[in-house]
Amino acid sequence: MKLYDSLRAPNPRRVRWFLAEKGVDDIEIVDIDLLKGAHKQKSFLDRAGAANVPVLELDDGLALTESIAICRYLESLYPEPNMFGRDAREAAVIEMWTRRVELGLANPLMLSVRHTHPALAVLENQIPAVAENHRGAADRALQALDVRLTDRDFIAADRITLADIILVCAIDFARLVRFRLPEDMGGLRRWYAAMSARPAAKAGVTA
Amino acid sequence: MKLYDSLRAPNPRRVRWFLAEKGVDDIEIVDIDLLKGAHKQKSFLDRAGAANVPVLELDDGLALTESIAICRYLESLYPEPNMFGRDAREAAVIEMWTRRVELGLANPLMLSVRHTHPALAVLENQIPAVAENHRGAADRALQALDVRLTDRDFIAADRITLADIILVCAIDFARLVRFRLPEDMGGLRRWYAAMSARPAAKAGVTA
Repeated sequence: MKLYDSLRAPNPRRVRWFLAEKGVDDIEIVDIDLLKGAHKQKSFLDRAGAANVPVLELDDGLALTESIAICRYLESLYPEPNMFGRDAREAAVIEMWTRRVELGLANPLMLSVRHTHPALAVLENQIPAVAENHRGAADRALQALDVRLTDRDFIAADRITLADIILVCAIDFARLVRFRLPEDMGGLRRWYAAMSARPAAKAGVTA
Repeated sequence: MKLYDSLRAPNPRRVRWFLAEKGVDDIEIVDIDLLKGAHKQKSFLDRAGAANVPVLELDDGLALTESIAICRYLESLYPEPNMFGRDAREAAVIEMWTRRVELGLANPLMLSVRHTHPALAVLENQIPAVAENHRGAADRALQALDVRLTDRDFIAADRITLADIILVCAIDFARLVRFRLPEDMGGLRRWYAAMSARPAAKAGVTA
């Protein structure tokens, strides 16, 4: 099994954090330099089937893209600690919150960064109105998440789950455009400090 | 168990189609009129926790939102025919394609409709540049899906799965803005004709 990774992109970090929480450190990592377009070269596309990272290549040659599909597959190989739910009801609650975080916050925030940061102009035809629209959606989602975290340690369960990992990776990626959690979001700020103090926060982070 | 539904919105139709494929017809349906703002009224918000449909309310009072989390939970209750994968490897492939369809095509196409259709101005601060940007992303995803369907009957497996349902619901919703599959997309058009001929295509569709 091989993991095609990129240290500065937001989605590969989800998988690195997920593996670090599970104590898995024996998967071969191949770094892909996105700003140099390594993900668009034929040798990579032939293998991965899409110009994306992360990609998990299985020993039988199957290339899996999509960070959340990769994490769910890895959960089947490394079930503990559980990140996706112990039964169908808990799994549904975790998936619901993971999706609220991803669709409501992480994706809009990431798109607002892509449409704003000068270094990412090589990846995106940047449009200010699009950046602003996504940023507005992200701000509304942040408020709802701050309410959710008022009296909870984690978003979806009594322990860290995939939903927390998706959220913290989104917030850290947005620091590229000097994003900071607002002072009055006490629930989110307390949760963020605790997440940032976990050993997994350092997985593959060099700066 | 109760399903809060809305006949004209795209995401509730995913759940109706999913249930129809499984032959489930004994879940109580409650219709929510989005254009009249029924999803923003306090009685609904107190129950559902978010201004969204669909919502699946379990008998213990838990309200699940997010169509895909709802479908996965329903799969645990009604496992056949299988829509999410029979083992971890197949489930990963299905989730990968479901996400490519949803994030690459369905969400951008839905947002382009929301930012374009006059009747949806009550739901969205419509911005032409945002509509155009999403539509461009959707068009690129359509091309990739057409290639995928060149010599396949279904997107992710040898049978219909969630990925097919998400795609067909997205295409049909975009008909609101007169979207049609391009003539030269033979793979997608053949697949679309076959999907539209399934009995489940009519689940809850009145027009």
